[in-house]
Amino acid sequence: MAVVGWAWPLAAADGDQALLDKAKALFKPLPESSALENTSLTPERVALGKALFFETRVSNDGRLACATCHNPAYHGGDALALSVGINGKVLPRNAPTVFNTSLLMAQHYGGNRVSVEDQAVKALLSPLAYGNTSYEQVEKKLVQLGYQAWFDKAYPGEAKALSAENWGRAIGAYERTLLTPSAFDKFLKGDAKALSPQAKLGLAKFIDTGCAGCHNGVSVGGQMYQKFGVTQDYWKLTGSTEKEAFKGYDKGRFHDTKNEADAFMFKVPQLRNVAATPPYFHDGSVATLPQAVRIMAQLQLGKTLNDEDVSQIVSFLESLTGAVPADFAKVPSLPVAPH
Amino acid sequence: MAVVGWAWPLAAADGDQALLDKAKALFKPLPESSALENTSLTPERVALGKALFFETRVSNDGRLACATCHNPAYHGGDALALSVGINGKVLPRNAPTVFNTSLLMAQHYGGNRVSVEDQAVKALLSPLAYGNTSYEQVEKKLVQLGYQAWFDKAYPGEAKALSAENWGRAIGAYERTLLTPSAFDKFLKGDAKALSPQAKLGLAKFIDTGCAGCHNGVSVGGQMYQKFGVTQDYWKLTGSTEKEAFKGYDKGRFHDTKNEADAFMFKVPQLRNVAATPPYFHDGSVATLPQAVRIMAQLQLGKTLNDEDVSQIVSFLESLTGAVPADFAKVPSLPVAPH
Repeated sequence: MAVVGWAWPLAAADGDQALLDKAKALFKPLPESSALENTSLTPERVALGKALFFETRVSNDGRLACATCHNPAYHGGDALALSVGINGKVLPRNAPTVFNTSLLMAQHYGGNRVSVEDQAVKALLSPLAYGNTSYEQVEKKLVQLGYQAWFDKAYPGEAKALSAENWGRAIGAYERTLLTPSAFDKFLKGDAKALSPQAKLGLAKFIDTGCAGCHNGVSVGGQMYQKFGVTQDYWKLTGSTEKEAFKGYDKGRFHDTKNEADAFMFKVPQLRNVAATPPYFHDGSVATLPQAVRIMAQLQLGKTLNDEDVSQIVSFLESLTGAVPADFAKVPSLPVAPH
Repeated sequence: MAVVGWAWPLAAADGDQALLDKAKALFKPLPESSALENTSLTPERVALGKALFFETRVSNDGRLACATCHNPAYHGGDALALSVGINGKVLPRNAPTVFNTSLLMAQHYGGNRVSVEDQAVKALLSPLAYGNTSYEQVEKKLVQLGYQAWFDKAYPGEAKALSAENWGRAIGAYERTLLTPSAFDKFLKGDAKALSPQAKLGLAKFIDTGCAGCHNGVSVGGQMYQKFGVTQDYWKLTGSTEKEAFKGYDKGRFHDTKNEADAFMFKVPQLRNVAATPPYFHDGSVATLPQAVRIMAQLQLGKTLNDEDVSQIVSFLESLTGAVPADFAKVPSLPVAPH
């Protein structure tokens, strides 16, 4: 509501309103829940999913859980450049945060998992992740560990409540609760004071520079595939190295589709919690956020940002950091196998 | 106080009193705190110690923290037979729970660490644990991660507040808070109803069988060295295998002292939380508690327990399980390295 006769507070408020209008056209605040339309997140499912998320004894070396790479201590990531699977094997890619990931268009950098549920189930048999040889083996372990009653309670009336499929559904249910609203959501809902002046300048630059062309929507990214390295080969700026798993540089979605058109196409990472989850890029090749911002502008948009630009954009990105969900930070006590 | 004229309730009460008297002569309830006489556990030290306990970035592969082997999900252990150091290397021994360990006579199975502080400091340079090459390297990492202010606050007035020594003191301070009072403590303090009738029968058998000869004191063990395998070689009953690290079977304290008199001498493990921390023995060679109880009676005392004996003793041992300290289950958010 413009009131005639006010001096700069009005101008500032007008500027805020214009920025807010711009932002609202590009971004959305987090929803209350990311439950699937046809799946309710019952307390029993969420509790089971949480236990399974922290459960290491289902992996083939007894040491790997979802929580290994998605650690409450590091905002749902692992603070490593490259994550580690069973038997200490270093994997070729970086683990993104689990927070808000249920809202993305797909899972993994190449998008080869359609949902958090799909990711959780398929990880069980991946030789790089849990390393099990069959779903029957997984189900047998879950029975031995004492989880039958948990599954029966979470999926009542199902012919086979304890199943690998329900492992995925339960973990998915839990992950769908891991949303991290931040100062930026307050801003999007109309509270102009929720962002510092520096962060607002950064938001304006983030939009004007072109970052929001890909990093948009509810998760500020994660809704499309884009070529990484538009102006030049990405590794020339990131210092990325060739990886045995990819027989060279990581070509992103190409490794999943084998389609040359997908070479170097990656799912655009979400930027929620980006300031809390270094190092950066699909291989963790870049250590700090200012460096990552500078490289992205150069690689994707052919723009050279100055120190002030970078510092303002970083301030905006910091406004995307939400609190670690209290329930996620609280590790559950897992059942002792009945003797 | 005996009151003449009552029937079996009096007899039961008398029996309870006699058992309680016996138990009080052998065991002690947990103290409120295990602070060292000359060291106060200030909130700043405990908070720093807690952060460092969960901090993986100080290890040489960036993946190992105290919490790796001492996981809130598994009652302060890792639910593995053998624990794992940096680079996925499987270690030759089982990780005991961190709960109440500050009360033990020494740390490690061979007692080669005099305190929790000593253990925490020396783990930094152990090639099997954190794998750092010098304390200077550790201190440099801690500065880079942004811990200078934390140390300054925890150890004010010290010429060098951020030091490997204070890493040990802080983690020790935190670990000294991890005490887990249980039903057995209530019983020792005079509440006869705190133990079930089955657990009381088990306690009586635990004492009468001779288990309490070694498993006594405040931590129900952990206060002396004893030969493991009095009646025969332990591996014949446990199924333990030879280990490369020991050039054969694990000879316990001998590997630390190189004294033949110490061959097969191990620190008697504490039994607090034993029911919640399978598998059993120094190498996790035995999967279940009933099996472990049976083997111990045979190996150490030459006694064969029947099913009822085992089941009652297990009931008593279950009364030693305390709740996971709420603060321990709550993973701290660790600092993001300043850029």
